[in-house]
Amino acid sequence: MSGVIGIFGTKRQNVASTAYYGLYALQHRGQAACGIVVNDDGVFSTCKDEGLVSEVFTSEKLSKLTQGNMALAHVKYGIEGYGGRENVQPIVINHIYGSIAVAHSGSLVNAYDLRLELEKKGSVFVSKSDADIIAQTIIRERLSVDSIEEAVALAMPRFKGSTTIVVMSSSKMVAACDVKGIRPLCYGKRDDGAYVIASETSALDAVGAKFVRDIIPGEIVVFTSEGVKSNTDACRKVKPALCVFEYVYFARPDSVINGLSVHEARVRIGTALAKSHPADADVVIGVPDSGIDAAIGYAKGSGIPYEIGFIKNKYIGRTFIVPGQKVREDLVRIKLNAVSSVVKDKRVVLVDDSIVRGTTSAKIVKLLREAGAKEVHMRISSPPFLFPCYYGTDVPSKDYLIACQHSSDEIKRIIDVDSLGYLEQEFFEELKSENNCGFCTACFDGKYPTIAPTYTGKLRFETKLSERTEK
Amino acid sequence: MSGVIGIFGTKRQNVASTAYYGLYALQHRGQAACGIVVNDDGVFSTCKDEGLVSEVFTSEKLSKLTQGNMALAHVKYGIEGYGGRENVQPIVINHIYGSIAVAHSGSLVNAYDLRLELEKKGSVFVSKSDADIIAQTIIRERLSVDSIEEAVALAMPRFKGSTTIVVMSSSKMVAACDVKGIRPLCYGKRDDGAYVIASETSALDAVGAKFVRDIIPGEIVVFTSEGVKSNTDACRKVKPALCVFEYVYFARPDSVINGLSVHEARVRIGTALAKSHPADADVVIGVPDSGIDAAIGYAKGSGIPYEIGFIKNKYIGRTFIVPGQKVREDLVRIKLNAVSSVVKDKRVVLVDDSIVRGTTSAKIVKLLREAGAKEVHMRISSPPFLFPCYYGTDVPSKDYLIACQHSSDEIKRIIDVDSLGYLEQEFFEELKSENNCGFCTACFDGKYPTIAPTYTGKLRFETKLSERTEK
Amino acid sequence: MSGVIGIFGTKRQNVASTAYYGLYALQHRGQAACGIVVNDDGVFSTCKDEGLVSEVFTSEKLSKLTQGNMALAHVKYGIEGYGGRENVQPIVINHIYGSIAVAHSGSLVNAYDLRLELEKKGSVFVSKSDADIIAQTIIRERLSVDSIEEAVALAMPRFKGSTTIVVMSSSKMVAACDVKGIRPLCYGKRDDGAYVIASETSALDAVGAKFVRDIIPGEIVVFTSEGVKSNTDACRKVKPALCVFEYVYFARPDSVINGLSVHEARVRIGTALAKSHPADADVVIGVPDSGIDAAIGYAKGSGIPYEIGFIKNKYIGRTFIVPGQKVREDLVRIKLNAVSSVVKDKRVVLVDDSIVRGTTSAKIVKLLREAGAKEVHMRISSPPFLFPCYYGTDVPSKDYLIACQHSSDEIKRIIDVDSLGYLEQEFFEELKSENNCGFCTACFDGKYPTIAPTYTGKLRFETKLSERTEK
Amino acid sequence: MSGVIGIFGTKRQNVASTAYYGLYALQHRGQAACGIVVNDDGVFSTCKDEGLVSEVFTSEKLSKLTQGNMALAHVKYGIEGYGGRENVQPIVINHIYGSIAVAHSGSLVNAYDLRLELEKKGSVFVSKSDADIIAQTIIRERLSVDSIEEAVALAMPRFKGSTTIVVMSSSKMVAACDVKGIRPLCYGKRDDGAYVIASETSALDAVGAKFVRDIIPGEIVVFTSEGVKSNTDACRKVKPALCVFEYVYFARPDSVINGLSVHEARVRIGTALAKSHPADADVVIGVPDSGIDAAIGYAKGSGIPYEIGFIKNKYIGRTFIVPGQKVREDLVRIKLNAVSSVVKDKRVVLVDDSIVRGTTSAKIVKLLREAGAKEVHMRISSPPFLFPCYYGTDVPSKDYLIACQHSSDEIKRIIDVDSLGYLEQEFFEELKSENNCGFCTACFDGKYPTIAPTYTGKLRFETKLSERTEK
Repeated sequence: MSGVIGIFGTKRQNVASTAYYGLYALQHRGQAACGIVVNDDGVFSTCKDEGLVSEVFTSEKLSKLTQGNMALAHVKYGIEGYGGRENVQPIVINHIYGSIAVAHSGSLVNAYDLRLELEKKGSVFVSKSDADIIAQTIIRERLSVDSIEEAVALAMPRFKGSTTIVVMSSSKMVAACDVKGIRPLCYGKRDDGAYVIASETSALDAVGAKFVRDIIPGEIVVFTSEGVKSNTDACRKVKPALCVFEYVYFARPDSVINGLSVHEARVRIGTALAKSHPADADVVIGVPDSGIDAAIGYAKGSGIPYEIGFIKNKYIGRTFIVPGQKVREDLVRIKLNAVSSVVKDKRVVLVDDSIVRGTTSAKIVKLLREAGAKEVHMRISSPPFLFPCYYGTDVPSKDYLIACQHSSDEIKRIIDVDSLGYLEQEFFEELKSENNCGFCTACFDGKYPTIAPTYTGKLRFETKLSERTEK
Repeated sequence: MSGVIGIFGTKRQNVASTAYYGLYALQHRGQAACGIVVNDDGVFSTCKDEGLVSEVFTSEKLSKLTQGNMALAHVKYGIEGYGGRENVQPIVINHIYGSIAVAHSGSLVNAYDLRLELEKKGSVFVSKSDADIIAQTIIRERLSVDSIEEAVALAMPRFKGSTTIVVMSSSKMVAACDVKGIRPLCYGKRDDGAYVIASETSALDAVGAKFVRDIIPGEIVVFTSEGVKSNTDACRKVKPALCVFEYVYFARPDSVINGLSVHEARVRIGTALAKSHPADADVVIGVPDSGIDAAIGYAKGSGIPYEIGFIKNKYIGRTFIVPGQKVREDLVRIKLNAVSSVVKDKRVVLVDDSIVRGTTSAKIVKLLREAGAKEVHMRISSPPFLFPCYYGTDVPSKDYLIACQHSSDEIKRIIDVDSLGYLEQEFFEELKSENNCGFCTACFDGKYPTIAPTYTGKLRFETKLSERTEK
Repeated sequence: MSGVIGIFGTKRQNVASTAYYGLYALQHRGQAACGIVVNDDGVFSTCKDEGLVSEVFTSEKLSKLTQGNMALAHVKYGIEGYGGRENVQPIVINHIYGSIAVAHSGSLVNAYDLRLELEKKGSVFVSKSDADIIAQTIIRERLSVDSIEEAVALAMPRFKGSTTIVVMSSSKMVAACDVKGIRPLCYGKRDDGAYVIASETSALDAVGAKFVRDIIPGEIVVFTSEGVKSNTDACRKVKPALCVFEYVYFARPDSVINGLSVHEARVRIGTALAKSHPADADVVIGVPDSGIDAAIGYAKGSGIPYEIGFIKNKYIGRTFIVPGQKVREDLVRIKLNAVSSVVKDKRVVLVDDSIVRGTTSAKIVKLLREAGAKEVHMRISSPPFLFPCYYGTDVPSKDYLIACQHSSDEIKRIIDVDSLGYLEQEFFEELKSENNCGFCTACFDGKYPTIAPTYTGKLRFETKLSERTEK
Repeated sequence: MSGVIGIFGTKRQNVASTAYYGLYALQHRGQAACGIVVNDDGVFSTCKDEGLVSEVFTSEKLSKLTQGNMALAHVKYGIEGYGGRENVQPIVINHIYGSIAVAHSGSLVNAYDLRLELEKKGSVFVSKSDADIIAQTIIRERLSVDSIEEAVALAMPRFKGSTTIVVMSSSKMVAACDVKGIRPLCYGKRDDGAYVIASETSALDAVGAKFVRDIIPGEIVVFTSEGVKSNTDACRKVKPALCVFEYVYFARPDSVINGLSVHEARVRIGTALAKSHPADADVVIGVPDSGIDAAIGYAKGSGIPYEIGFIKNKYIGRTFIVPGQKVREDLVRIKLNAVSSVVKDKRVVLVDDSIVRGTTSAKIVKLLREAGAKEVHMRISSPPFLFPCYYGTDVPSKDYLIACQHSSDEIKRIIDVDSLGYLEQEFFEELKSENNCGFCTACFDGKYPTIAPTYTGKLRFETKLSERTEK
């Protein structure tokens, strides 16, 4: 998924700190790498690396970023084979009219084709990043037009897949969203006049910016010293296709996408689940953190009291070490602990957002059983995951997806629950009417909103690159 | 407060990893420093330093700790003026019969007197830690008796204040609790026969040990290769005095102290608050994480629906940097974000565990108001904080305690709430009957369960040390 | 100056360690940054960063470099304004036929022109490095020819200035030297059949390779699995122009350039100085390390005994901190200490390689005076430094060069010596006959061997880049 | 051996930086660990750790040391089994009259006995350091007298072995030397009135202090605000026994011990070698750095010209990694490179300070042979090493000493030299007359100047400690 934040200010100031706070608010969208580029009147200073925001930005490094009136920042979702410092965004390149930085949320399906085309014209690459291809494509277009926004407008139709981007030039900031609007993007304004562009509204809240509006599918918005201009020429009548997992799992509950609160959407999902999959139970609990909101909804919908069933250890992060081999199996136990007094001798409804491989779910259920739960009724706030995603979500191949390999009854036995219910896909139709927006539900039904990808998965792209050799 | 975990195993194994997992489960009890001492047949290897468990124990350092059959570990609560690597526990000293390690949860009130007495006999100190005084006092006693447990028994009555300790000798583990039982300690057993001693039951859960029982006030329990022996000679008829804040704030909700679940205690506190301080409101929310359990109790007691009012940014830890001066005020905003869809146009009951200085509460209320809350009714799950604690809780002086400086009405205005209600102290009487245990409530009523301290606060102790000089 | 080492092996092996040892041997040629690129059958793995070899290559990082049959490595000389990780060499780029890595020793005088030309065709840059321009120029040529060596041959004439490069493609290694041969390059062979290309023979010694021959000005040598091929089409009849400072200061005394030992050259310079600038003295000493060899020569030429006059503190490196402001002046004192028993009451000949600003020389002389030297006769093993260098030596502007600002007599007074003698430039004519090679002596006489630079100094290049902006 | 530096200033200032510079000057005396303790009117701040001065003292850590008027600092020589942060000096302990810091150069032979005696009285230890035993012994004595200097005077006779110490109390600095004077100690004065106590005069030079005098065997010198007082009551008529290796190897050539320059002593040793072991040769070279001074002496004595035979890579330090197993044998080759032009076709005299195991010598000779040396005549500037040292030099057991295992002829063959000559022990008699001082030559002749050690080597001490256990 990835997260983007851009700041277009009115004067020279510590924009790096604003970007830093914004990245913290978006950290949930990508934990593999992050970066901030500060623009000080055309001179870009960059700090980026692999790691969490808290790991990459030491006090010393943050202080080395200059003051500026613009900044662009990115948190990167980890995709196997795409590590390496050179792939961390924002991508910064220098060209004949100065520098540009590009931050991308999403995934191109025609990356290899675009790259080959550029290379045949003499371009070279130092990264495998889609953002690099996007940046160089834009710069090629820039040679024939008069402005960066025109170059973006010419380039956008060439990018297939999910392409939500923010481009920072020496003097302007350009935000653009593909015609399907698969990944969200919005902007807000601070009291000091600065504009803030972000993947989610919660990042606007974190930096004290008031939400102005979502950037709509196909739109290009340009922020300059003259003000904000929108180009909607490419916006089509076609139904947009926001990734439904933004509501189900990706986005923060305190964000609002297309006018609908993510928390509220999850509560409704929970309420719907209570109706379609009722349970005769004493207490409703959620798996922290992703199942909590839907659990509250299930409690509302069913009248069964909501309770705190698990305490999540908030100190366990990336640096947690698993020294003893044997204990590796007990990792879930160290992260989560059941609250006995809540579940003992109770019939428990357990709400989670999805079942991917099933192994974690099985361990969580076991914790409840050990803590004395009499019955466990599992409710999942999404339909079963059956198809790969080409738009930025890293899911295992079908071989590992439990829903592809087993029937619902088998899954029930594998994870040891008394009943199991998934959200019906039809529910999203209802949600659509609510937020006036179409959904991409390809991971449930295989109906992809874009052309077929020219390769399957990122790893194929990498394979193609590694096969190249000197004749 | 601090947290202690000891492992007494039956064979040579990776006890360091067990200690490490245990420390993660106890991290909430102390974030200033931590350490693990592994005992490999009398040879102690130690890793300790200032910082969180995740900071101190790199993979490399953890792997340098040898295998062993025993380990003792500690997380330290930060008290100003007591930093420095030399003060990190467990304290390890070598004496005529090998080494001992000592981990202490609590605070001595007669530390300076004990230390001076030892020094007059020729002892020297490299730390300012109470645990060092405790260790050296025990070793002095050891010279005249035949075992470490007898030495502990002779030494314990000399320690005034809260003195929950675990002592590891070359071949034994000794757990002891002062007669007032101010800080909790319990032990459990693993399937492989290893005993685990810990400050809280949640640490037993984390390392796969089944709770056996609490160590009672005045008791000394010895773990040897022969088994477990208890010495209750010092247990008195006097009412014990468990720190009430263990239930209110310190302990993890999934821990059970003296037979009462901490989560359950907080839910009851919330229910009691709903009765003593009802509110005409639409929704009950808690301040994460400390107000959540009581908020659920308030919702139960009042019938007003519980909801998630704030999303806490789970990535913000100690390494979070506050680069821009101006934004410093907005730090609460970055850590917490109100969920607008929950509070907008609503009358909100906001539950928190305490109001200390009032500044944070004011900022939290402001977030709610900005998110559209129509009314804010604050409910506090403890009585007002009026007196200093001498038993291990670091509270600011009366000058900074808002409840000492302002009336309840003034506080209402300062933090901008529509109503304000504290838990009545009488409620603890009710809780007592429940868990068959007395409470120390000195921070609310000034009734201290031990002799008056010979100095006021740790800083006085340090001052006395720094005044010493060569004549 | 910079240093380059390339390994072209016969089988998959730990080439990174060979490169690492080679970089240690070349560290004196550049201490700002360094990097190693390993080529494992076309897959490049890279480790590079700012810092010394000992700082950049931790054990962990070195072990992450894969095995391979080729490696290319570089140490970078620091030029102000050219810091930044992106400028560290070898530069690695991916193109249509795989990857290439480029390492460059020297400096282009037409860098900006070449870059602008590429950019007008759509190329973009992520660095300010000459090596990046060299690499992209080569890749553009590669599109129209069939091999990397042909591309290098087409590109070389376009590079003006000092351009000693090694290019590693997926299957070949190409070493090339500009027609003037300003910077040295040679290659050797190991017993296992691997070829090693290096800036100096001492690096061949360090990795156990036997010297084969120098690469001659204008030559392109290609190492492939078929063997070694040389292309001398570009070698001209024009007199080559090896930088004379390679003998005077840059190269290691144990290196041999163009058949002449660097140590031997310095000894001869010392002998020549003894003849042209005799002194009535008791002892000859050298400033460690750069004046030692010439001092031995002076002793030989004059018959005055050689002695050790200074002990250099071998532990003072880059991490040395100068905490007390006042002591900053005494820094030379901490690095060097005079041996009193050698200089006390003696007439001392002090030999150094050059006087740049004069401040260090003055402090060194002061140390001798304090240690009791009766007279100090300074002898400099090069002519006075009067002109800027465009070929890779970072010298201060004329404003700071003492020889541009003061007469020899004034310098004598400023640095407080009893006599002062510089090497006569004519001496190099004598050396020429010896090593059958012309010299670039532009820094002494202003006669530059290439076209006039299109900008003055690197900083102008950077200025031009920073002026670019979006219209 | 270890190195000590103490500063007793006249006013509050940045004494840490002076100590830091001093430690750099003494780094050659110990590279295992180092520390600085600053005394700010009785409040001690400490920074110490394992590692070189450049590794332990980062800019951040150095700046955390407060200003003060006194500082005590130490570099520690590494002895196997005595690693660990707790053993790093200066040892700091708090006692009834404040704090003291102790830095020790040398080694106790009765450490275990002294420690046991203290422990029987109730003392405990956190380290295995001799300095800790020394400090606690002094503090025990302090209880019965009125000043720290009296306590030192009472304690000194109890320490057997080499005991050169500096003790810093809240207001005084006490320097003391055992009656045999095995390790050197001297003091000097700076222009600002500050006294500096140091193991070697080169450290005085480095911090701008003028040498005042050596501290004589048995003397106790006290530095107070009243001035400097000397107590020579313990100085005996017995011949002192300065470690002869201080001249041969340990001390810096620019230091002066007991009135004799170390460089001068080495030159004389070389001259003596030239007389006792002449060679028919063309050139004299030394192994850097320890053989250089004696090589110059050999050249003087023999009339054979001195030359630079090896270039030592000055960048190779502790962080040097040996990644490829096979190359490990070539490590000497990477550190040292022969200068072919100097040794080719020559008969070479090679001077080194000692042969310990013989492996390094063999490799060095091989380098010369490969570089074309026709003959190699090895001359060693000390007698053969035959006995263990109990006074602070870490030598391998007899099993590894080549001179204990092989005849001179066998050694010649093993290291492949044409002739081999050691310095005659008688030479030291000549040196004695010069510096009016007796020598400890126990490592050559087994005549130890103190009582027999109560254990053999430090490892026995550790073994005894590890055997202790609880009954």
